Amino acid sequence: MNDTSASASNEVLTAIMNHRSIRKFKDEKLAPFQIETIVRAAQMASSSRFMQAYSIIGLTDPAMKRELREITKTPYIEENGHLFIFCADLKRFTVMGNEQEQRDMRTMLESSTVYQTAVIDASLAAQNAVLAAESLGLGAVIMGSVNKDIRRLDQMLALPEYVVPLFGIAVGVPDQQPEIKPRLPLEAVYFENNYASESELREQIELYDHVMQRYYQTRSENNRDAGWSRSHIDLLKLKMPLGSMTEYLHGKGLNVI
Amino acid sequence: MNDTSASASNEVLTAIMNHRSIRKFKDEKLAPFQIETIVRAAQMASSSRFMQAYSIIGLTDPAMKRELREITKTPYIEENGHLFIFCADLKRFTVMGNEQEQRDMRTMLESSTVYQTAVIDASLAAQNAVLAAESLGLGAVIMGSVNKDIRRLDQMLALPEYVVPLFGIAVGVPDQQPEIKPRLPLEAVYFENNYASESELREQIELYDHVMQRYYQTRSENNRDAGWSRSHIDLLKLKMPLGSMTEYLHGKGLNVI
Repeated sequence: MNDTSASASNEVLTAIMNHRSIRKFKDEKLAPFQIETIVRAAQMASSSRFMQAYSIIGLTDPAMKRELREITKTPYIEENGHLFIFCADLKRFTVMGNEQEQRDMRTMLESSTVYQTAVIDASLAAQNAVLAAESLGLGAVIMGSVNKDIRRLDQMLALPEYVVPLFGIAVGVPDQQPEIKPRLPLEAVYFENNYASESELREQIELYDHVMQRYYQTRSENNRDAGWSRSHIDLLKLKMPLGSMTEYLHGKGLNVI
Repeated sequence: MNDTSASASNEVLTAIMNHRSIRKFKDEKLAPFQIETIVRAAQMASSSRFMQAYSIIGLTDPAMKRELREITKTPYIEENGHLFIFCADLKRFTVMGNEQEQRDMRTMLESSTVYQTAVIDASLAAQNAVLAAESLGLGAVIMGSVNKDIRRLDQMLALPEYVVPLFGIAVGVPDQQPEIKPRLPLEAVYFENNYASESELREQIELYDHVMQRYYQTRSENNRDAGWSRSHIDLLKLKMPLGSMTEYLHGKGLNVI
């Protein structure tokens, strides 16, 4: 992996490597052709067994956006050019076939395995959506926080059984230009044939903590003095509301365990 | 969404819209710089709370590739330029902090909610990897089938607790040029504010069945006479081995329910 004799550059790679999440947008709505371009790009991602097991909901209703902002305490959930909610969606398979076939499909449809492939499908599509938005000169941020009160979001969007919100993507004209965040060392993420040893992991993470500490100290906004490990220990120690996810999924008709 | 007065085009969108999965590759290995470019592109995707909760394992060992091909009966798992296995990975968070902090983090780390964000992280990264490969003139296919015997794959890769294989990506020089597959009508995937009614869904799926039937009948390889619904009813009726996924995840230290 130290072969630097050749390197690659093209407009796709440039776009990918220049990604930063944008959390402050100008007050300009996306044009319909921009929304359509983003959705069509999302749809071109691969999907498991071509199930296309996701839906995308554009949240444009001002009262709904306001409420979601209040639930999440996140201004850019309301203030953006467009807000997409990406959902795992197995509903389409419940409106095809006869009654016997419907019964025969239930076990698979409700399984953890198929639900996981729906989550993967939605996420592959989402990354295309982000890149498509960025290619149009827009900025984007993916937000798990839209699920802070998943039952309320579910009601707001009138989601039927078998449809589960995963995350939002806010898109708009950027009103900030954050630095690109350094990623984990490649050696901490990519291995050949066998997973790394604990000592190798520790060593790489320690190196990375120094990189991130410097990044957090010197970036133009939201400075702080912490490495990557410390931030995540503090985050994961918090007892966020958990345990209701499976209950919620069961309520959606999914028999995931 | 019928505004066709403006349209968008750029090299990123062209790349995204030209995606097709490639399942037959020339006998040429990827160069190290190509592998590195693909992994670094994957790493630039967004990740939930910047957890970067995934790993990528390059499977290069010929005996391991042969065995995985035999398990999956999939020739291109062995015959490709490079094989990546994408894993959800929360292991890194178990080698940071002191013992008390480790205890405090467990509930979150082992939860379904955090596991799901790891699956999302890995999938966002994977789509970047596919696009990066395609931008280098290579082809790619994402394969859930590498998990056909997930315990055996786990052993082969020596995956520790908290690391779960999700899918493989085979990359290489294309030795086929399949047609682009038509996607679901935009109206069956994208909604504003509220999910569609069942009758709207049925109508859109019926339209799409005709499109896909024509596609399957006329494509250059692997012709068949079926729409999208029929293919998926037949697929989902099969009782694939299920039910062991949760047991496997529990064995990986994850308390997902």
